[in-house]
Amino acid sequence: MSRALTTDLYEVTMALSYVHEGMTAPATFSLFVRDLPRERGFLVAAGLDSVLEYLSEFRVRPEDVSAFADLLHRPRGDLTPLQGTGFDGEVRAVPEGRIAFGGEPLLEVTAPLPQAQLVESYVLNQISHQTAIASKAARCVLAADGRSVVDFSLRRSQGIEAAMKAARLGAMVGFTATSNVAAAHKYGLTATGTMAHSYVEAFRDEESAFHAFAATHPGPVTFLVDTYDTVAGTVTAARVLKELGPPPGCAIRLDSGDLAALAVITRRVLDESGLPDVRIVASGGLDEYRIEELVRAGAPIDTYAVGTRVGVSADAPYLDSAYKLVAYDGRPVMKLSTAKVTAPGPKQVIRHPGCADVIALRDEEVPPGAEPLLVTVMSHGRRTSKPEPLAWAHARFTADLAALPHNARRIHGPVAPRVTRSPALEELTRRVRRRIEDDVLATT
Amino acid sequence: MSRALTTDLYEVTMALSYVHEGMTAPATFSLFVRDLPRERGFLVAAGLDSVLEYLSEFRVRPEDVSAFADLLHRPRGDLTPLQGTGFDGEVRAVPEGRIAFGGEPLLEVTAPLPQAQLVESYVLNQISHQTAIASKAARCVLAADGRSVVDFSLRRSQGIEAAMKAARLGAMVGFTATSNVAAAHKYGLTATGTMAHSYVEAFRDEESAFHAFAATHPGPVTFLVDTYDTVAGTVTAARVLKELGPPPGCAIRLDSGDLAALAVITRRVLDESGLPDVRIVASGGLDEYRIEELVRAGAPIDTYAVGTRVGVSADAPYLDSAYKLVAYDGRPVMKLSTAKVTAPGPKQVIRHPGCADVIALRDEEVPPGAEPLLVTVMSHGRRTSKPEPLAWAHARFTADLAALPHNARRIHGPVAPRVTRSPALEELTRRVRRRIEDDVLATT
Repeated sequence: MSRALTTDLYEVTMALSYVHEGMTAPATFSLFVRDLPRERGFLVAAGLDSVLEYLSEFRVRPEDVSAFADLLHRPRGDLTPLQGTGFDGEVRAVPEGRIAFGGEPLLEVTAPLPQAQLVESYVLNQISHQTAIASKAARCVLAADGRSVVDFSLRRSQGIEAAMKAARLGAMVGFTATSNVAAAHKYGLTATGTMAHSYVEAFRDEESAFHAFAATHPGPVTFLVDTYDTVAGTVTAARVLKELGPPPGCAIRLDSGDLAALAVITRRVLDESGLPDVRIVASGGLDEYRIEELVRAGAPIDTYAVGTRVGVSADAPYLDSAYKLVAYDGRPVMKLSTAKVTAPGPKQVIRHPGCADVIALRDEEVPPGAEPLLVTVMSHGRRTSKPEPLAWAHARFTADLAALPHNARRIHGPVAPRVTRSPALEELTRRVRRRIEDDVLATT
Repeated sequence: MSRALTTDLYEVTMALSYVHEGMTAPATFSLFVRDLPRERGFLVAAGLDSVLEYLSEFRVRPEDVSAFADLLHRPRGDLTPLQGTGFDGEVRAVPEGRIAFGGEPLLEVTAPLPQAQLVESYVLNQISHQTAIASKAARCVLAADGRSVVDFSLRRSQGIEAAMKAARLGAMVGFTATSNVAAAHKYGLTATGTMAHSYVEAFRDEESAFHAFAATHPGPVTFLVDTYDTVAGTVTAARVLKELGPPPGCAIRLDSGDLAALAVITRRVLDESGLPDVRIVASGGLDEYRIEELVRAGAPIDTYAVGTRVGVSADAPYLDSAYKLVAYDGRPVMKLSTAKVTAPGPKQVIRHPGCADVIALRDEEVPPGAEPLLVTVMSHGRRTSKPEPLAWAHARFTADLAALPHNARRIHGPVAPRVTRSPALEELTRRVRRRIEDDVLATT
């Protein structure tokens, strides 16, 4: 199925109307998250690679036109003005991995109006979703405070595509591995896996299960010890590991119960068995809140495996994002309706040291010591550079995280740095609002 | 990419170990949701069609074996025992659209142990996700109490796959249309669309925008009236509609502000303009809670367009689902660890009138007047019948909803009917628990 069908019907009806009216001049749409969710002090920009891939391939094909006509109950000929529409516009965006805040444009599209409208649904979907997940995952890395975090989200994410993205985004913010084989293969990530309770249950007893697993897998193994009784399972696992003379990298996984207390016991059993190098992996309903608790409690856990709650960003499963027209044919525009006022004109975000961000007009000068967040990533419908290695986004994230103010890093009650608007943007906003109030509303 | 890669790494390591140990006897895994989320009184079973499609095509191909070996840092030859593994087992499941409750098996897989293990991640993902979304969507239909509900979730769902599923699942529970063009095309749904604020902003004023839209679209149109000032926009829209002599099916869309109050004003303006047949569509952050409020307030809204909050099931974005081994080689098994005890053996759910469900052993007799929920949908790796029309799942949902007790239907504080276990299942559970406690734990 052509990707041009991945759109809301109104994008099609609007685009057709624009073409009919000859309204094909350049339009700029600005994509931003209005307000951060309550427990977020920052966003990690993500989804741009998916967007650029989509835009590079975007084209309304003859079969798409047929589908549009069918769904609109109109003769095929009525829709042919859209046939062949591609994307030959410009995209400026905050690169993946960078930290951003509410109200700041994450991406701006400038293209002939029908094109910029038709791509809205896909672009908004990918940036919103991926930014939500990357931001959640980043908080787990913060909470783990140097310990490993790995992705176990495949089984309960919102579909397989979401699971693939979660694995990639986890790696972007520093997860050390994923359980997702397809994602590890596709994105070049480290794959990790242990054993399930079903494995232990399929054998007559735990000891047989552990021995069999080690026999098949001569490298490092991780034994799951909570199928029947966690402490008894740990003792059995330690005995089997001792007999093996464990290769480096072996671990015990705890998946239920009081993880802090069990980790202490497990550590003691391992140490007393002369297995100080065997690590402890914890899993089971973990997220940044639980990780922070466990770290603060001093639990001797080496690796936190996060799954469902992070893969779906359970406490904030969506972002209040918008893709708003800010200029058409050189004329800045805005929306005035209740509580959803937007600021007009193409923009730039100017970051001063300490994440003191100013939302400015696109062409305002960037003072020395400050830097612009949005960069041109697509021009005339082509990427300005090749798809980049994931490590680049990770490097950006690491650098931005190091500069993020303490309050924004808090797991509970984070406070984002204040984002201001430049005087020039404020002035333009006033001017456009006046024009609308004078010219538009006066006519009714 | 082969779908056999869509799995967690531990499924691969376990499957390999099973093959090494000659443990290829039939295993039964039971998929169930442990507890319902707080604000759910029932589940709508969904995802089975995706699962059966996946299982029909499941096969470990040579390139998958190479990927497994790479990720495990092992010679390719070590993984070849898995090459060619397909799925030739049996699946029994609650058909899509049926209402079910916590603790009840939604699906049971019986297949040679390595096969049943390898497919876990995908099966669990699809049933969990789709059941979560169908259950959320069903509550919107309940809250709307006979009014139309339509799907606008594409732009902020967790990926495109999730949006496709949301559109299909909405239709399954009675949504009348979707904005998602690809989904409408793929699943044969009614597509719906209006216009965005950007459309209005791209014109000099609202009146020009409405006229232009109607000129392009001679059929029914929906005017969005809250770009600048909702009441002024409504007056303009009514004037333009009056001039058009509106075809049947025209509407006004309200997307912000106090929807209940604005709908009353809009209705009055339309009625006073002699447009009693022009309907009112409401959108903007809607879910079953808001819909219930609006319906109770008597808001004259004809169609509720739900998006993000429903598409991601915002208040319960995942289900506490599990895929547990319940029997291996004829031997019932169970897990005993804290708070996650499972019941052993293949099962059936026997529904008595009034949704009085009993979880029983697979082969217990179903008394007259009761019915079994799980039916055989795959045998020897083949579907027992062709993929069914979505209307069949919708018909099941409608019938089950009519029989659902009032308390389970409540939007706030719903209470699911009590699910009991048959004496035979209770007895088996006791027996297996005793065996594990005697045989397994005694060895440590």
